[in-house]
Amino acid sequence: MARRPVLEFWYEFASTYSYLAAMRIERVAEEAGVEVRWRPFLLGPIFAAQGWNTSPFNLFPAKGRYMWRDMEREGARHGLSVKRPHPFPQNSLVATRVALVGDDHAWGPTFTKAVYRVEFGEGRSIEEPAAVQAILVKLGLDAEAILKMAQAEPNKMRLRAVTEEARSRGVFGAPTFFTEDGEMFWGNDRLEQAVTWAAGERPTSAA
Amino acid sequence: MARRPVLEFWYEFASTYSYLAAMRIERVAEEAGVEVRWRPFLLGPIFAAQGWNTSPFNLFPAKGRYMWRDMEREGARHGLSVKRPHPFPQNSLVATRVALVGDDHAWGPTFTKAVYRVEFGEGRSIEEPAAVQAILVKLGLDAEAILKMAQAEPNKMRLRAVTEEARSRGVFGAPTFFTEDGEMFWGNDRLEQAVTWAAGERPTSAA
Repeated sequence: MARRPVLEFWYEFASTYSYLAAMRIERVAEEAGVEVRWRPFLLGPIFAAQGWNTSPFNLFPAKGRYMWRDMEREGARHGLSVKRPHPFPQNSLVATRVALVGDDHAWGPTFTKAVYRVEFGEGRSIEEPAAVQAILVKLGLDAEAILKMAQAEPNKMRLRAVTEEARSRGVFGAPTFFTEDGEMFWGNDRLEQAVTWAAGERPTSAA
Repeated sequence: MARRPVLEFWYEFASTYSYLAAMRIERVAEEAGVEVRWRPFLLGPIFAAQGWNTSPFNLFPAKGRYMWRDMEREGARHGLSVKRPHPFPQNSLVATRVALVGDDHAWGPTFTKAVYRVEFGEGRSIEEPAAVQAILVKLGLDAEAILKMAQAEPNKMRLRAVTEEARSRGVFGAPTFFTEDGEMFWGNDRLEQAVTWAAGERPTSAA
């Protein structure tokens, strides 16, 4: 069997539209014969570098109000419940470190979807280590060992390197998709196009 | 014949994605039996109020680089050529004043599409009164009389009122669409959904 093309899916746990993409990407990619590489990272340091100390949806209230309404509509369209966690954005540091450990294990995507379901499907906190631990336990994983590994120095350094990789490749928001030929797509709205591109199709003129 | 539902299309001449929407909206709306109300306005004062003195695509270079690549792909998908005018963003004041005069005449949408074609289809300037005049002349309109009306005090005041209307209704970017029941959609990516909503359909769960 030929090797399947790979699409990198860069996501941030504090990102609402990353939630929609995370819950949809496996089905969309599978149908196109594309493999997904899950890439958790932190958007905070990238935002901070351009002078933002919180989500743009908080910095620009009109945009924030619109985003929550749009999430309601998009959630309805995709059959996903949307609830706002408090505070928003959630501090995603611990969950992201765990997801990075999950990158080396089969449970990675399952954990990621479980976090998003708690955070934006149920509107509950994912901030505290205890919240992340509860998610791991519910998945039948060795929560204590995983959290220990997640919070150890090598994994912290790895997350810093991953986030720097994102920045250096031009990532400015989430979700962001990269095809193997370096094409970048931003936003849940571009998921289908990113997968199509990864599968080898190119946009053609309708004219 | 029953009255057709109306969709307001708020656009800014300096906005790249407004170009894509302007060239597509008539066909998409016609197919759904929806009438378009063209609403030219200035985004500059709204950006200025949140501390931005130019396009966010210039303020945030990574986002700007991505936008131009995305415009290339989206243009190809819709059969529209995309060329970058210099400088970007173009000062859209004169063209917008003329489009506002056109709001009372049948030539309004034709003028708007002609401006966008020059600016983003051909990458040429629309900044100077002479550039706008040339577009009007090419359409066989009384350019001198229209420009005089456009630059007169009542029309300047009208544009300020329109732009304040946009801000007060929550507009933070362009293009923005409003349905008659007050639903707001932002971006060329939401054109189809805005038209569908205007026609009375609601998003339903795929689950």
